[in-house]
Amino acid sequence: MKIIKRVSEVRSEVKNLKDKKNVIGLVPTMGAIHQGHISLVRGSKKECNITVVSIFVNPTQFGPSEDYEKYPRDIQRDILLLQEEGVDILFMPSVEEMYGKKSLVSVEVSELSEKFEGNLRPGHFKGVCTVVCKLFNIISPDKSYFGWKDAQQLVIIKKMVKDLNMPIEIVGCQIFREQDGLAMSSRNVYLSPEDRKNSIALYSGLKKIKDMVEVENIRDTSSLIVEGKRVAESFSGVELDYLSAVDTNTLEPLDKIKGEVLILGAIKIAGVRLLDNILIKLK
Amino acid sequence: MKIIKRVSEVRSEVKNLKDKKNVIGLVPTMGAIHQGHISLVRGSKKECNITVVSIFVNPTQFGPSEDYEKYPRDIQRDILLLQEEGVDILFMPSVEEMYGKKSLVSVEVSELSEKFEGNLRPGHFKGVCTVVCKLFNIISPDKSYFGWKDAQQLVIIKKMVKDLNMPIEIVGCQIFREQDGLAMSSRNVYLSPEDRKNSIALYSGLKKIKDMVEVENIRDTSSLIVEGKRVAESFSGVELDYLSAVDTNTLEPLDKIKGEVLILGAIKIAGVRLLDNILIKLK
Repeated sequence: MKIIKRVSEVRSEVKNLKDKKNVIGLVPTMGAIHQGHISLVRGSKKECNITVVSIFVNPTQFGPSEDYEKYPRDIQRDILLLQEEGVDILFMPSVEEMYGKKSLVSVEVSELSEKFEGNLRPGHFKGVCTVVCKLFNIISPDKSYFGWKDAQQLVIIKKMVKDLNMPIEIVGCQIFREQDGLAMSSRNVYLSPEDRKNSIALYSGLKKIKDMVEVENIRDTSSLIVEGKRVAESFSGVELDYLSAVDTNTLEPLDKIKGEVLILGAIKIAGVRLLDNILIKLK
Repeated sequence: MKIIKRVSEVRSEVKNLKDKKNVIGLVPTMGAIHQGHISLVRGSKKECNITVVSIFVNPTQFGPSEDYEKYPRDIQRDILLLQEEGVDILFMPSVEEMYGKKSLVSVEVSELSEKFEGNLRPGHFKGVCTVVCKLFNIISPDKSYFGWKDAQQLVIIKKMVKDLNMPIEIVGCQIFREQDGLAMSSRNVYLSPEDRKNSIALYSGLKKIKDMVEVENIRDTSSLIVEGKRVAESFSGVELDYLSAVDTNTLEPLDKIKGEVLILGAIKIAGVRLLDNILIKLK
């Protein structure tokens, strides 16, 4: 695995590989690699000849009161894990390398970026879109892999790529879960053992909704959401930020379950925010 | 000259040419081709194997009360002129082809986009940056050619490309002028014969400033601007929007002429806005 810190170097390395007709897969991460990331890497390894992983904790997607400073970083462990998976190139630039002295550009996807996480974290998706756009321009991947865990992010990145005519295929990968169902996230390490137990609150609410749709044949989303919320909030110390049934492309709320519906939510537990969602597909 | 209207078609055409190691030059235009555009095409022809010209009157860079509808369009004439210059590909998409049903993305360069033209035309440079970013992603040129006539646009595009890490070289080309000094612009056709005579107001002011710097050795920009304004405003029917001496990269106002300084301005004459500028380089 080549470890590269410079934009110019990774660009010329990938260009050489592209000139030799290699298909390039990119997995953008903020490090603190877990099984969720590994599944993205495996997705890329399956479909591409060359897999590039980037590790960059992007300051511009954190709000002033958020956890940029304390975001988990363990680069030596990350390197070992990615090496074991046979990653070809690890790109890990510094903040200075990515943003230089005074970066003025921003990329934004309106409407989609203002709901849910965007409503609670103003500017977050602008930071995400800008850095992902930069990484795409630096690496020029053929495909790039994102987890469904951050469903809103995935929907926004897909829309950005489409609307900016970027010649890149965005691949959404299934959520990777702990044994009890908690969606894998780098932020799970913030949870105390007690909070960890209650952290399945949101997943429990989502599972309840899925059962109600599949077993009880309930289609009315407002009853589903009421019941999902009740289940999630029955766990100790859990505050629900939002829980909603939406269209998978527009993130617009839906009255009825029909076709493909995304149920997405966020909870706060002892100050830690956790996201989760399920995709319901009816024939 | 191949004339292509579809994004997918121009993309695959250019990809084939790039695979054969051709260097691709792009000249983005809104049509109404004049000698200024032709000089950009010649710049590209000199430095690149393949020259692509795009013609697209981009609605998102016009304000609601601006001249989108009446912007000069003469596609048959444009085609002949570009053919004569040996352009390889003319890309002329429809608005539907470029923006689809509901485009949500935008690219913005803050600070630089808020001054001068941006101050008078809110959202203008957001529209410009977004469409240029799209064209760059569709064509993937090695180089792209822009005229210095729209100096602020050129500075903003350069900054966008740098800050978004786009692997494209932006080439700024000298202003092409009519015999009396009026900078070539598609909007010059809006001028009545009488207004056309007075339209050299801004150029006259700029020339006066250049003389004062070079002959009279004046370095204090406030005296230069006062005198340049006086000259420009001495022409009948001319309103000066702004005239300023700024840094060529940051567009920040400068107190003294030193090194490279951009003097840029805009006038309104019978409702028609005209831009012009000069670059002063002192050793």
